[in-house]
Amino acid sequence: MSYASALAQWERVRQRTERLCGPLATEDYCIQPMDDASPPKWHLAHMTWFFESFVLNYANPSYKPFHPHFEYLFNSYYEGVGSRHPRPQRGLLSRPLVSEIYAYRHYVDDAMQEMFKSASDPELLRRIVLGTHHEQQHQELLLTDLKFNLGHNPLRPIYAEATKSKEEAIETTTRQIEHPGGKLEIGACAEEQPFCFDNELPRHSTWLEPFSVANRLVTNGDYLEFMQDDGYNNPSLWLSDGWAEKQIRAWQAPEYWFFEGDEWCEYTLHSVAPVDLNRPVCHVSYYEADAFARWAGARLPTEFEWEAAAHAAQTGYHGTFAEDNHFHPQRQKASMTGDCWQWTSSSYAPYPGYRPLAGTLGEYNGKFMANQYVLRGGSCATPLSHYRHTYRNFFYSKDRWQFTGIRLAQDRGS
Amino acid sequence: MSYASALAQWERVRQRTERLCGPLATEDYCIQPMDDASPPKWHLAHMTWFFESFVLNYANPSYKPFHPHFEYLFNSYYEGVGSRHPRPQRGLLSRPLVSEIYAYRHYVDDAMQEMFKSASDPELLRRIVLGTHHEQQHQELLLTDLKFNLGHNPLRPIYAEATKSKEEAIETTTRQIEHPGGKLEIGACAEEQPFCFDNELPRHSTWLEPFSVANRLVTNGDYLEFMQDDGYNNPSLWLSDGWAEKQIRAWQAPEYWFFEGDEWCEYTLHSVAPVDLNRPVCHVSYYEADAFARWAGARLPTEFEWEAAAHAAQTGYHGTFAEDNHFHPQRQKASMTGDCWQWTSSSYAPYPGYRPLAGTLGEYNGKFMANQYVLRGGSCATPLSHYRHTYRNFFYSKDRWQFTGIRLAQDRGS
Amino acid sequence: MSYASALAQWERVRQRTERLCGPLATEDYCIQPMDDASPPKWHLAHMTWFFESFVLNYANPSYKPFHPHFEYLFNSYYEGVGSRHPRPQRGLLSRPLVSEIYAYRHYVDDAMQEMFKSASDPELLRRIVLGTHHEQQHQELLLTDLKFNLGHNPLRPIYAEATKSKEEAIETTTRQIEHPGGKLEIGACAEEQPFCFDNELPRHSTWLEPFSVANRLVTNGDYLEFMQDDGYNNPSLWLSDGWAEKQIRAWQAPEYWFFEGDEWCEYTLHSVAPVDLNRPVCHVSYYEADAFARWAGARLPTEFEWEAAAHAAQTGYHGTFAEDNHFHPQRQKASMTGDCWQWTSSSYAPYPGYRPLAGTLGEYNGKFMANQYVLRGGSCATPLSHYRHTYRNFFYSKDRWQFTGIRLAQDRGS
Amino acid sequence: MSYASALAQWERVRQRTERLCGPLATEDYCIQPMDDASPPKWHLAHMTWFFESFVLNYANPSYKPFHPHFEYLFNSYYEGVGSRHPRPQRGLLSRPLVSEIYAYRHYVDDAMQEMFKSASDPELLRRIVLGTHHEQQHQELLLTDLKFNLGHNPLRPIYAEATKSKEEAIETTTRQIEHPGGKLEIGACAEEQPFCFDNELPRHSTWLEPFSVANRLVTNGDYLEFMQDDGYNNPSLWLSDGWAEKQIRAWQAPEYWFFEGDEWCEYTLHSVAPVDLNRPVCHVSYYEADAFARWAGARLPTEFEWEAAAHAAQTGYHGTFAEDNHFHPQRQKASMTGDCWQWTSSSYAPYPGYRPLAGTLGEYNGKFMANQYVLRGGSCATPLSHYRHTYRNFFYSKDRWQFTGIRLAQDRGS
Repeated sequence: MSYASALAQWERVRQRTERLCGPLATEDYCIQPMDDASPPKWHLAHMTWFFESFVLNYANPSYKPFHPHFEYLFNSYYEGVGSRHPRPQRGLLSRPLVSEIYAYRHYVDDAMQEMFKSASDPELLRRIVLGTHHEQQHQELLLTDLKFNLGHNPLRPIYAEATKSKEEAIETTTRQIEHPGGKLEIGACAEEQPFCFDNELPRHSTWLEPFSVANRLVTNGDYLEFMQDDGYNNPSLWLSDGWAEKQIRAWQAPEYWFFEGDEWCEYTLHSVAPVDLNRPVCHVSYYEADAFARWAGARLPTEFEWEAAAHAAQTGYHGTFAEDNHFHPQRQKASMTGDCWQWTSSSYAPYPGYRPLAGTLGEYNGKFMANQYVLRGGSCATPLSHYRHTYRNFFYSKDRWQFTGIRLAQDRGS
Repeated sequence: MSYASALAQWERVRQRTERLCGPLATEDYCIQPMDDASPPKWHLAHMTWFFESFVLNYANPSYKPFHPHFEYLFNSYYEGVGSRHPRPQRGLLSRPLVSEIYAYRHYVDDAMQEMFKSASDPELLRRIVLGTHHEQQHQELLLTDLKFNLGHNPLRPIYAEATKSKEEAIETTTRQIEHPGGKLEIGACAEEQPFCFDNELPRHSTWLEPFSVANRLVTNGDYLEFMQDDGYNNPSLWLSDGWAEKQIRAWQAPEYWFFEGDEWCEYTLHSVAPVDLNRPVCHVSYYEADAFARWAGARLPTEFEWEAAAHAAQTGYHGTFAEDNHFHPQRQKASMTGDCWQWTSSSYAPYPGYRPLAGTLGEYNGKFMANQYVLRGGSCATPLSHYRHTYRNFFYSKDRWQFTGIRLAQDRGS
Repeated sequence: MSYASALAQWERVRQRTERLCGPLATEDYCIQPMDDASPPKWHLAHMTWFFESFVLNYANPSYKPFHPHFEYLFNSYYEGVGSRHPRPQRGLLSRPLVSEIYAYRHYVDDAMQEMFKSASDPELLRRIVLGTHHEQQHQELLLTDLKFNLGHNPLRPIYAEATKSKEEAIETTTRQIEHPGGKLEIGACAEEQPFCFDNELPRHSTWLEPFSVANRLVTNGDYLEFMQDDGYNNPSLWLSDGWAEKQIRAWQAPEYWFFEGDEWCEYTLHSVAPVDLNRPVCHVSYYEADAFARWAGARLPTEFEWEAAAHAAQTGYHGTFAEDNHFHPQRQKASMTGDCWQWTSSSYAPYPGYRPLAGTLGEYNGKFMANQYVLRGGSCATPLSHYRHTYRNFFYSKDRWQFTGIRLAQDRGS
Repeated sequence: MSYASALAQWERVRQRTERLCGPLATEDYCIQPMDDASPPKWHLAHMTWFFESFVLNYANPSYKPFHPHFEYLFNSYYEGVGSRHPRPQRGLLSRPLVSEIYAYRHYVDDAMQEMFKSASDPELLRRIVLGTHHEQQHQELLLTDLKFNLGHNPLRPIYAEATKSKEEAIETTTRQIEHPGGKLEIGACAEEQPFCFDNELPRHSTWLEPFSVANRLVTNGDYLEFMQDDGYNNPSLWLSDGWAEKQIRAWQAPEYWFFEGDEWCEYTLHSVAPVDLNRPVCHVSYYEADAFARWAGARLPTEFEWEAAAHAAQTGYHGTFAEDNHFHPQRQKASMTGDCWQWTSSSYAPYPGYRPLAGTLGEYNGKFMANQYVLRGGSCATPLSHYRHTYRNFFYSKDRWQFTGIRLAQDRGS
């Protein structure tokens, strides 16, 4: 990637972030509704801190940071950078004010623009591109964290009116698409791709037994059948840890569903409405995805099966991404991607021969390779310009606040 | 009290509340820095809800509340009113917006003004006066809760510039003032006083052995001696529960103190500065007050001793109250009152013959009469117009976020 | 008290302890069913450690302790003695074996006997008497802790067959006995009594308004009426802290009650049987006692009222104590004492002029004078030889595992 | 396997269990030193319950269980069987007595012997063999749980004197053994093996990149170098979850190590002694194993690499197993197996085409396939007669109380 195109992409992404915040009131910027969900204010500052720490400080040793305490306040988890404000206390900071955070962004934007004029170092370019993708990741988190705030407010305020959906003909039939398996190449090809994270490398061989995956995501209608069959109360369908978690949290439906009057309703960023049976089910944990699959006589795909199937699919249609401005799964045509991140049965682990980035940036992905599960496919809150089939998202098996859904897979006789 | 004077008082208090919020940014209204410390936004709404629930609804059965959900959101603890938003989640509400809370206040203010025009019911008058004192209580809490927020922000922002202190000649000598004890009357005399809470009644007899109390509060200088004598690490000075609490919380100084450079500093609502040795020590728990007293060869007074001594004192000087706009203890002349609430060794319990108010308002005080300790004397954040010597404040022995200080007492041979 | 009578009393108490353990299997000695309830093995060792630490070490500086680690293992809470095994881990020690604990007891008994031969120091005598009463306190705890173990075992094993009750004519009428109040002396008179704890001193004056107390304890039958009137689910009857505790613990009946078939049953140390409506209700918390009293239109007595009423009562009958070997409340004749400890509304606090014992023994009582409530009257597990009307027992308001019951009091017009 | 050989094996295993308990005092049978470590008494009963529930009940519908409550008390986690005593409360049961547990075992043994006389059903045979291996698994847990009890007792009692070690020539050189990778078969071949668990099936293909594994386990000497290089305090070596866990638990050395005098010592089932530098390091978590590997410039093997390497090794020497009666890792010759379970980097997941056993026995393994890591190779507490190279043990990444050690692997250029 050239510096010119990196600049153009960087500008688009920075502007997009602020546009996403357009509908927010000052108060909305401040709330941390649970430990994992940061306030929008924090996201805005942290994205900016990333450029300050890893780009501007690198490019210009005499760069003067905007504020001496912001490194402490807005470092997320980089031990190599130093100590930092405790994550569960991000919502306890009324100061800096929202206006000061925007001033911070613009101060850093100006410094970045200035730097672009004379930059040519390829490592610096890599860091700019990484920072841009980092900001796109946080755009998605900003939306899911905001949703957790608004969606758990008893007043159930919405984020914004819905963008009108292009009501294309939807797929009404679910079927399994077979894949012969065999020896396959998995992972990104660093040379052929404008960008990938270190965790997608190196490209390497794997062996798959024959399998099939569904042509579409599990729908709310499918999921309601599981619920009506008492799926939430049948321990034989559940992993042991999942059954324990379900009981502690008293799960009886996906996050954001609630029973009112005589029907299941759902909070979305745009509305409070009865559940649409034709949309993909969303906001389920790994445990629920796994239990549903067992109930359905199927299983979740591995991340390798998923990647192979995605490369084979060639549908031309990619589902809903953030650029569609829906921020909620839509009625689907058949697609391997979009709308909801898809839980895979693969634990998040390094690929054979994995090497993290050098230095502190090596903390970006590598140190999280334990106890989490890989999700694939992107969601309605993921920028399409940030997506590729080799993308590995990862969350804990109990997590439900992302746009997470289910695709079923099955074994096939070889 | 007449309706006319109740109206005048009510107007002053309502305006005062908003003036106290003058220095706040929108963001400051939203933060709940710990379970016990509510966001300013919540206080503003709750004070208003009190008038809506207990005055307007009572005065006019067809009164239309401002918002159907506000009763749920802003009821503090009245089981008789119904269910309510969980206390630890008061800081998770970005909506209603601050501007909506002010609109709520003004809507209720208008309805109150309208009601005043024709009101004459003495029970209604009692409720208006109670609501006015309720609002004054929350003015103090608003300040202490705000201080907990700002004072624990790593940026240590201040609330406002300090009001200049009238530097009167301060008392430099601490001495014990003797009281002969004997049979004494304790509690408010409902007939002689414009207002008192139910917990100050009935006036009744008690017997006191001879005792003495100090003419002034324990100072920071006194307290530093205790610290320098390793008072925080000597278990023989501490109550068992206090020693456990101290270890869990790693207390080594009062709340808001921190060691920087080579000296102890203190965060106040106006400044971050070295501790002033001549001011009363503040923000200590009951456990610290008790340990300090033991170290000093003294003890805390009972609330009965305190009240008897206050009535006997007649100094003419009453110390610092909220009307002084200092919001921090000042260098003191001898006084039984003001600057800091004073921990007494009396558990918060009903007086003999105590009867709570009828109905739901009976929950105001009575149900808290367990496990807490009585504090006396008012503080720099207490409105003087809200104060009287029979006033019983109460907090848990571990609490430090109020303006709480220490007065020493001693036994005297009879 | 003379050395000769101290020796006789000490021998009786030491033997009694072992006789109480007669029905125990080795396994029963080891269980700590909750943090507050120690294993019998620990009690046996701790009682012995008390004599080793405070008597033998004091009497003979060259005394050789039985085992170098036992001071660490069996010190309860004496900071002045040194660090100790954490209380919640007392049940994690399979070693020392029960047989070793008995060997420890007998080693110390031998040393005590030897010491008695030549002792004459009055301070030593005081310590022996204190240690003897200490052992009697732990006899009661041993039984209540054992009950918590056996009573929560799904097999509900009993401790021993019941001693046959002397079925005397029971009192069937509950009535309030009036007391005129006035200036009264409270507390032990050290000179006139063979023994009292420091917390019963000094004897001092208090003033009581006229009051009355019931002639007998609240019965299971009375309490069932409260339950059937939905007393456990009516927040207007409860203290705020009590309501919270009740919900966390899901209390719907006293400890050891369970509903089976179509009736309430009760586990006792001797049986599992339907609740006997004529016995005193037992194993209730302060919160339940207080809620019951409010429901009954009465209140709990203060400890001063209780003591005054007990001195005035002169019934000649003292209720059930440990020497009766029932270890469960019996059908009652009118009595101020026995069967169940009675919650008073008095916080556990020092008497005016209180001085703890000198040195480490000062930790015996004084440091617990916060956050607990005083209980009076002794129980079916309290040795009568250990009891006096000035005795102040104390537990936290949430505690239910002692034999704790309810006596009602009322205000009287003066 | 024939019924005759199953009977012989079953008898040997049942006797072995009781022989392992030979050194225990009654008290030792009762202690549950943490939630995960059950009392020996519970293990003895649970092993027996397994035969009662899955063999005797199956073989003979009119079989009369020993005690009506034992199904509730000794069911471990089989939801299909019904509700059960909470796991963290297994140590709160003084009853049933140890002697009753032995009576239970012998009652079931008699019924089993009787059943063997006429049995011929192949499904019954499978269940007997499964139950026998189940008992062997619990033999290992019994020892590790007992060690956690004794090893955390401040008296540090030992289990038994050490069996004298055959001091064979030990391996002093660590080297990496290369494996070419490629397409390999993984998992058990059900037909060729007398027994395997369902989680070892089906045998299937996998693709491995070239790799190498060490010829021996990491030694205490190796691990001390990591410690001396401040490995426990260098966050760049640790997984994020591991770093958090390490801080919460204050880990600075393997479990059972303690610094005394001027050296590191280790508690074993036989002794308290200075750490032997030539023995394999033991009782480390996955996090520590992973951090050590990163520090050493290596990584942990996957379970597939491990299995391939084990099949390739052919050393003839298999390390220390339970039959050696050492119950602690010994100085090692090169071996892929024995002494310590070896953490692999593989999350515990179903093999492609995995099918759990039918019915309630399907809960044996399948429902644990989340959030845990696979360990391979067997330990000094694993019966060799229970072991095979395809054996998949699994624990959580934080667990340290098993005999868990480290083998290093590396990537190799293809």
